[in-house]
Amino acid sequence: MTAINSNVPRLGDCTVKSPLSLSIENNDLIPNYVEEGTKVIVDSVFRDEIPTEFKTFEVAGPREKIYFDPSKTRAGIVTCGGLCPGINNVVKSIVNELSHGYKVRSIQGFRYGYAGIVPSCGYETIQLSSEAVRDWDIKGGTMLGSSRGPQDPAEMLDALERLNINMLFTVGGDGTLRGAQAIYEESIKRNYKIAIIGVPKTIDNDIDFISRTFGFETAVAKAEEAIQSALIEAEGAPRGVGLVKLMGRHSGYIAAHASLANGNVDAVLIPESPFKLEGTGGLLSWIDRKLKEQNRAVVVVAEGAGQDILAGEKPEFDASGNQKLLDIGTYLGSSIIGHFKKTKDPVNLKYIDPSYIIRATKASPTDAIFCRRLGENAVHAAMTGRTGIVIGLWNDTFTHVALADAVSRRKVIDPDQDLWRSVLQMTGQPPTFY
Amino acid sequence: MTAINSNVPRLGDCTVKSPLSLSIENNDLIPNYVEEGTKVIVDSVFRDEIPTEFKTFEVAGPREKIYFDPSKTRAGIVTCGGLCPGINNVVKSIVNELSHGYKVRSIQGFRYGYAGIVPSCGYETIQLSSEAVRDWDIKGGTMLGSSRGPQDPAEMLDALERLNINMLFTVGGDGTLRGAQAIYEESIKRNYKIAIIGVPKTIDNDIDFISRTFGFETAVAKAEEAIQSALIEAEGAPRGVGLVKLMGRHSGYIAAHASLANGNVDAVLIPESPFKLEGTGGLLSWIDRKLKEQNRAVVVVAEGAGQDILAGEKPEFDASGNQKLLDIGTYLGSSIIGHFKKTKDPVNLKYIDPSYIIRATKASPTDAIFCRRLGENAVHAAMTGRTGIVIGLWNDTFTHVALADAVSRRKVIDPDQDLWRSVLQMTGQPPTFY
Amino acid sequence: MTAINSNVPRLGDCTVKSPLSLSIENNDLIPNYVEEGTKVIVDSVFRDEIPTEFKTFEVAGPREKIYFDPSKTRAGIVTCGGLCPGINNVVKSIVNELSHGYKVRSIQGFRYGYAGIVPSCGYETIQLSSEAVRDWDIKGGTMLGSSRGPQDPAEMLDALERLNINMLFTVGGDGTLRGAQAIYEESIKRNYKIAIIGVPKTIDNDIDFISRTFGFETAVAKAEEAIQSALIEAEGAPRGVGLVKLMGRHSGYIAAHASLANGNVDAVLIPESPFKLEGTGGLLSWIDRKLKEQNRAVVVVAEGAGQDILAGEKPEFDASGNQKLLDIGTYLGSSIIGHFKKTKDPVNLKYIDPSYIIRATKASPTDAIFCRRLGENAVHAAMTGRTGIVIGLWNDTFTHVALADAVSRRKVIDPDQDLWRSVLQMTGQPPTFY
Amino acid sequence: MTAINSNVPRLGDCTVKSPLSLSIENNDLIPNYVEEGTKVIVDSVFRDEIPTEFKTFEVAGPREKIYFDPSKTRAGIVTCGGLCPGINNVVKSIVNELSHGYKVRSIQGFRYGYAGIVPSCGYETIQLSSEAVRDWDIKGGTMLGSSRGPQDPAEMLDALERLNINMLFTVGGDGTLRGAQAIYEESIKRNYKIAIIGVPKTIDNDIDFISRTFGFETAVAKAEEAIQSALIEAEGAPRGVGLVKLMGRHSGYIAAHASLANGNVDAVLIPESPFKLEGTGGLLSWIDRKLKEQNRAVVVVAEGAGQDILAGEKPEFDASGNQKLLDIGTYLGSSIIGHFKKTKDPVNLKYIDPSYIIRATKASPTDAIFCRRLGENAVHAAMTGRTGIVIGLWNDTFTHVALADAVSRRKVIDPDQDLWRSVLQMTGQPPTFY
Repeated sequence: MTAINSNVPRLGDCTVKSPLSLSIENNDLIPNYVEEGTKVIVDSVFRDEIPTEFKTFEVAGPREKIYFDPSKTRAGIVTCGGLCPGINNVVKSIVNELSHGYKVRSIQGFRYGYAGIVPSCGYETIQLSSEAVRDWDIKGGTMLGSSRGPQDPAEMLDALERLNINMLFTVGGDGTLRGAQAIYEESIKRNYKIAIIGVPKTIDNDIDFISRTFGFETAVAKAEEAIQSALIEAEGAPRGVGLVKLMGRHSGYIAAHASLANGNVDAVLIPESPFKLEGTGGLLSWIDRKLKEQNRAVVVVAEGAGQDILAGEKPEFDASGNQKLLDIGTYLGSSIIGHFKKTKDPVNLKYIDPSYIIRATKASPTDAIFCRRLGENAVHAAMTGRTGIVIGLWNDTFTHVALADAVSRRKVIDPDQDLWRSVLQMTGQPPTFY
Repeated sequence: MTAINSNVPRLGDCTVKSPLSLSIENNDLIPNYVEEGTKVIVDSVFRDEIPTEFKTFEVAGPREKIYFDPSKTRAGIVTCGGLCPGINNVVKSIVNELSHGYKVRSIQGFRYGYAGIVPSCGYETIQLSSEAVRDWDIKGGTMLGSSRGPQDPAEMLDALERLNINMLFTVGGDGTLRGAQAIYEESIKRNYKIAIIGVPKTIDNDIDFISRTFGFETAVAKAEEAIQSALIEAEGAPRGVGLVKLMGRHSGYIAAHASLANGNVDAVLIPESPFKLEGTGGLLSWIDRKLKEQNRAVVVVAEGAGQDILAGEKPEFDASGNQKLLDIGTYLGSSIIGHFKKTKDPVNLKYIDPSYIIRATKASPTDAIFCRRLGENAVHAAMTGRTGIVIGLWNDTFTHVALADAVSRRKVIDPDQDLWRSVLQMTGQPPTFY
Repeated sequence: MTAINSNVPRLGDCTVKSPLSLSIENNDLIPNYVEEGTKVIVDSVFRDEIPTEFKTFEVAGPREKIYFDPSKTRAGIVTCGGLCPGINNVVKSIVNELSHGYKVRSIQGFRYGYAGIVPSCGYETIQLSSEAVRDWDIKGGTMLGSSRGPQDPAEMLDALERLNINMLFTVGGDGTLRGAQAIYEESIKRNYKIAIIGVPKTIDNDIDFISRTFGFETAVAKAEEAIQSALIEAEGAPRGVGLVKLMGRHSGYIAAHASLANGNVDAVLIPESPFKLEGTGGLLSWIDRKLKEQNRAVVVVAEGAGQDILAGEKPEFDASGNQKLLDIGTYLGSSIIGHFKKTKDPVNLKYIDPSYIIRATKASPTDAIFCRRLGENAVHAAMTGRTGIVIGLWNDTFTHVALADAVSRRKVIDPDQDLWRSVLQMTGQPPTFY
Repeated sequence: MTAINSNVPRLGDCTVKSPLSLSIENNDLIPNYVEEGTKVIVDSVFRDEIPTEFKTFEVAGPREKIYFDPSKTRAGIVTCGGLCPGINNVVKSIVNELSHGYKVRSIQGFRYGYAGIVPSCGYETIQLSSEAVRDWDIKGGTMLGSSRGPQDPAEMLDALERLNINMLFTVGGDGTLRGAQAIYEESIKRNYKIAIIGVPKTIDNDIDFISRTFGFETAVAKAEEAIQSALIEAEGAPRGVGLVKLMGRHSGYIAAHASLANGNVDAVLIPESPFKLEGTGGLLSWIDRKLKEQNRAVVVVAEGAGQDILAGEKPEFDASGNQKLLDIGTYLGSSIIGHFKKTKDPVNLKYIDPSYIIRATKASPTDAIFCRRLGENAVHAAMTGRTGIVIGLWNDTFTHVALADAVSRRKVIDPDQDLWRSVLQMTGQPPTFY
C-alpha cells in the first residue's frame, strides 16, 4: 500500500540543534518534537473497502534538528489583502515564537502588504519584537497595514536580499499566496536560500486542503448578529423582509454557517447553488409564501451568489486583478421591492451589508488560539528550511501544504454533503430555486 | 416668586384609593406615594441672580388617590415608527405595572402601529398579560410590530370606544406623539374619558424637554462599534478613510456621543453645524491634513448633516410625511474618493451604514431600567386620569410633559454648549468647516 | 488490509423509506443520504509506514431506509448533570429534526434529568413541539431542567414502556452516558425495541473518541474573560497575583485553552501534570520570579489539578457518586498569600472562581451550529434503529460511537503533544513544577 | 431670595488668557467658555411653594481667564483604591486636556496610589503624554496601578514640592478624597500654590452630591450578567436557588440597579433596609414561598446588607482603615442551605460572587464619555486655580463640589423614594423582611 505524499520543498539538510528544549521521550511530561516523516491522511472517510493508496500531508511542528542558525536568521513578515479577524494575532505569534522560542533577534515588519517590500513604494519597515507587538491582539485589523495587488517578484526578492532576510512570512489570501509562490520560484531560480511560508487568510474559508481558516469563526459570529438584526427588523413591520449580504465571492461558507447559527433564516443563497427569481420555483415565489405564512421573511445572500443573473453586465476588475462582482445584495433588494410593489402587496424591506464591521472584528478566543498555533507552526516550518508552503489544518492536525496545492483550486460547499443538508433543513427552502 | 407650571390635562377628580400599598410616611421603610403638587424646576442653571420665575414640570409617580377603578379599566398599547432598543421593555413594563400593580385585567396590544387600531387594516389585537410578555425583553425590536404613517384620529377613537378602552399608551416618536395629540383632542371634543399617555421613542434623542430618550444609550454603544470598525479599516490600508453614517435627521446626538465614546474620530458632522467640502477651511482640506499626519482619517456624519449641500435635489416624502433626506453618507463617500483621485493621491475609503443593526439591538441594562421606569410612570399617570401627556425625564426625575409641549420643537445640540465643545476638543477639528 | 470497526448496535433491518427527500445522486444540487457502510479512520496520523489495520467509526447522518415508522414513533428527551452552554440548542434541534424532518408527532420532554423519568419523583413530562421550543436557544441553561445522580435502569425502562417511547435521547456527561448504557442493556435483556442515543455533554471536553464536545468553545471564551479580569486586577496593584480556578476535574482542557486564548498567563496547572509548591522548581518560586520580573503574576488552575497535594484529606462523594474534589483554588490562594507573608513581601492576591457564570452562558454561534448538527444526527441515528451509541465528531465528521467505548476512559491532555507545548511556550513555565 | 453657594476654594485671581480658543458669543457656532458665577440649583424638586433659598453648586467648565501659566504648569495624577471601570479613561482624558487643550508639557503619573507619591515607597513616576496614554482606555483596570491606605499628607506634599508639581489629580473613593483633603489642608497651611482636584471613584455610586459616579453603569451591566447566570442555574435544577453577592458596603445601588435591569429577581437585600431570616415575615419564608410557586428563587444581596445579623462577630479593618465586612453572601448561602435541609426539602443553591470580574471590566461607551468629560472638567478646574474640590454631576451638569462636602456623608438609597419602589414592584417582595 502506498502513501502519496504532498510535496514539501526543503532548502537543505537540518544540522542545527533546535534551542526549544523539547523532548523525544514519551511520558516524561515534556512536550515532544515532531519526528520527521509524520503524516496525516487526507481522505479519512471511505465506504466499505479501505483504499490502497492515500494522499497525505506532512504534519507541522517543531523538529529536533533545524536548518537555520537562529543567531543569523533575519525574518520578515507581511500582511496582504482585505482585513480578517486574527491577523494581528498571527503576526504576534510569529514574532513571539521567533524571539522567545528560537531567540531570533532580527524581525522586520513590512507595511501595507507587498507594496511595503518594494523600496519604490517608500514605506519604512518596522523592527518587531515581543515588546513591540505585546498589545497588537487587543484590536482587530492589521497593525502592519495591508494592501491589495501584486508586486514584481524579482523586485521583492531583490529587496529581501538587500535586507539579508532569509525567511518571509506572508499572511494573506489567494492572490497573496500566488505572490508568495512567485517569490518562492524566483528564489529557487536564483538559489537564494530563503524560506517562504504562507499563513492562509481568507475570511471566506475557501482555500483548498485547509479545513478552516483563521478569522472564519469570528466572522460567522459577527455575521449572525447582522442576521438577527434583519430578523428583528422583519418581525417589526408588516410584511417585513430582512435581507443580509455576507462575504463569499466563490463559496457560501459564511452565509451557510451564520444562517445555521441564527436558525431563523428562510432562504440562503450561495454561489454553489444557482437560483432564479421568477417562476413558481423561484425565490420571489418562496418569499411570497413565507410572507403569507409568517408575515415576514429573512434572506441571506453570499456576495458571489447569482452571478449568472447579473451576467448581462460587463466585467470589472479590482487592483489585485480579482473580477469585481456586481452587487447581488442591492440587486436582490430592488428586485424584491419591485416585484411586490407590482403585486399591490408591498413589502417592508431592510437591507444590511455588515461586511466591514465583520472584517474589522477582533478575533474570538477560539480564533485567537488558532492564530497563535498557526504562527508557531509557521516559524517551526521556516526554521527547518521548509519553503513554498502554507500552514494548514486537517483532521485537527496542523500540516504543511505546498503553495502550489493550496492555490490550485478553491474550496466550495458541496451541495451533496451535510453542511448544505443542514442549511436546507433549517430554512425549509427547496434544494434549488428553479 | 412665581412658578409657571406646564399644563397637565386631567380627566376628573381622583376618588379611588390606589391598590399599590405604598406609604405616605417617611422613614417607615415603605416607598411613598408622590404627593400631588410635586414639581421639578426646568431651568436649574443660572448666572449670578436667581430668577424670580421658574417653569416647572409635574413630577410623575404613583398617587394615593386614582381616577380609574382598576376592575373596570381597559388598556391598549401601540408601538409606532422605526425600531429603537427598548420598545419591548417599555411594553412589558406597562403590562406588568397594570396587572401586578393595579390588578388591571384587560390589556390589548395593537399590531403594527396606528394601523392596528383601525379596523379596516385588518389586524387582530393581542391580549396581553404578564405571562404573555414574560420573554419580550430578551430581544430587540417590537413584538407588537410597528408601522409608519398617520391614521384618522376619529376612526381610531371610534375603534377604541368600541373596545371600551379607557387608556391608550402610545410608544413612538414625533409623528406618533402628534397622532396621540390628535386622538387626545378628538376625545376632548367627544368628552370620551380616555387617558392618552405617550412614551417618547426617538433613537435620535431629539424630543424637547426630555433629557434622554430610551434606547439612546444602547444606540450610542452600538454606533461606537461601527466607528471602531471604521477606524480599524482606516488603519489597515495606506491613506485609509473610514466613513460612518449614523442616525440623526435633525440632531447629531448619536454621532456626537458615539464619536466621543470612541475617541479616535477626526471629524464629526452634524445637522446643527453646517459645513462645506471645498476650500482651505473645508472638510476635504481637513481630511487631507489628517492623512498627511496619520496616514488615515475617520469621519462620522449624522444622516441629517449637510442637507444644504444636497439642496439642488428636489424633496421627497415618506409615508409618514417626513421629508426623505438625500443620503449624505454616500454623497460624502463619493466626493472624498473623487477629490483625492483628482489629486493623484487616491484614498482607500470604507463606508459603513450600521443603522438597522443599531436599531435592532436589545436594550442595554441601563436602558432596560429606564424603560421599566418609564412604563411604570406611564401607568401611574394614566390611572390618575392624566391625559394628553408624555412621560419625560428631567434633572434625574420622571415628569409629566404636555404632548403639546413635547412636539412643539425638536431638541438639538447647541454648538455653544459643552457637548459640542467636548467633541471639537476630541477631534481637533475647527469649530466649522468653512 | 483490515478495518477494525467500532461496534454500533442495531434494533433490526431498515425497511421504511425515509421521508427526508434527499438524494442518492451526486451533482444534482440535492443533498445526499449517507450510504450505509461509510466510515472514518480514527488514527489518521502515522509515521513513515502506513498501518495495515485501522480502527474506524461509522459515519453519522440520514439513511435512505430507516427502521422506525415515523407515524408510530414516540420520542423522549432528557438532560442530566451540570449546566453546559448549548443544552437547549441540542434539545431544540432534536425536536425540530423529529417534527420537521421525520414528521414525528409525539415528543416528550422529561424534567430534571433521570429523576424525571421515574414516576415516583413526581415530575410531569412536557409535550415538545417546534412551536414550544422555538425560543429555547435564546438562553443558556436547560429549559427541561436537570439533576445529578443515577436512577434504577429497570424502573426507568418500565416508565418508558408505559409511555410507549421507542427512542430516548439523553444529553449528559459521563454518569449520564453510563445511565444510558444501563437502560440500553436492560432494553436488550427485555428485547424492548428502543433506540438509546446519547449526546455527550461535558464542558470539560473529556470524553474519549470525541474531538470536541458542545459548549466547550463557549466555555473557553467565557473563561478567558475571567482570566483577563485576573490580569487586570494583578496589573492594578503592586505585587498583584491573579488566580483563576476553572472547570476540569480530570482534564485541563478549559484551563489550557482559555489561557492560550488570553496569552498573558504565567502558570497553568492541570490534572495531567503534577506540581509541587515548595522548592526551587516549585510553583511558589516561579511566582516569586515573575513578581520580580513583572510586579504581577497570573495563575490558572483546573479544579482537578494538584489533588495529590490535597491527599491528606478524606474523600467525599456527591449525589452522582463523583468524588468531590477538595478546592485547589482556595488552597492555592491561601498558600500563596501565606508564603509571601512569611517572606515579608506580601502579595495582593485576587481569586476568581467563574464556574457558574461560565456554565450558564448561552451557546456561541459556533457551538449553536455544532449543537444543531449533533441533534440532527442523533435523530438520524435513532430513526435507523441504532441504539447504545453517542454522536461524536472525528476528523470533522459526525460519527456513531458505541456507548461502551465512549465511557471506557476519559480523554486527557497528553503533555507530550502540541496543545501542552503551546501552553508552555506561552507561559514560559518549566515543563513541570518540580 | 438667596442662593446659598457651596464653597469652592481658589488659589488666586485668574489673569492668564485661556489658550482654548473658545468663544463668549452665542450663535457663532463656536463653543463658549463658562462664565464665572454660573450655578446649578441642588434641590430642584419641591412641592406647592417654591422655596426662597437654594443651595447651589458652581458649574464646571473652561473659563476665559485661568490662574496657571500652562508653560510653567507641572501636573501629577494618582489613582487609588479598588478597581473601577473607567479609571484609565479618566487619566487619559486629563492627560489629553492638559496637553492638547492647555499645552501643558509636564505630566507625572504616580504609580500604585498615594504610595507612589511618597519617595520611601520607591516607585518611579511615569512621564505621561497623549502618545503614552493612547491605548490606555482599551482595557479596564488602572495602568498607573493603585493601592489602598493613607500616606502622610506632609510627606506627600514635600514630594510634590520637590517635583514642582502645582496641580494634583486624585482619582479615588472616600478614603482617597479624605487624603486629598488632607493634602489640600496642608498646602493651605504652607501657602503652597497647588490645585488639588479629585475625580470621585466609587463603583458603589455612594458619594453624596454626585448623581452618578463613573464606572457605575458598566458595573451594573456586568452585575446583571451574573444575576442572569444565577437565574439560569436556578431554573436548571429542581428547587434551584441562585444567590448573587454584589458590591455595596453602605449603599445598595448596584444590587438595586442590576436587579431592576434583570427583572427576574425574587429578593434584593441592601444595607438601607434591614432584614431577618427567620419568622413568617423573614427571608427564608419568602424563599420557601417562591420555591413553591416557581420551583426556583433568585436572591441578590449587597455586601453591606444584613450587617446587624453578623454583629456577634468582632470587627476587622483593612489597610485603608475601612472596617472589613463579614461576608453576608456565604453566610446567607449556608443559612439557606441549612434551613431547607432541616425542612427535609433541600435546595440546589448556586452562589456567585462576581466582584473582581465586575471591577476589572472596561468602561462602557456611556461611561467612556462620562470619564472623558470628568477628566476635561477636572483640568479646567485646576487651570483656574480651584482647589480642594471634586468634579461632580448634578442635574445633568458638571459641577465643582468642595471636598469637605463630598466626604461629609455617604449617598444611600432612600427606601421612601422611587428607586426602591421600582425594586419592590419588580421582586414582589414585602417592603421589609420582618
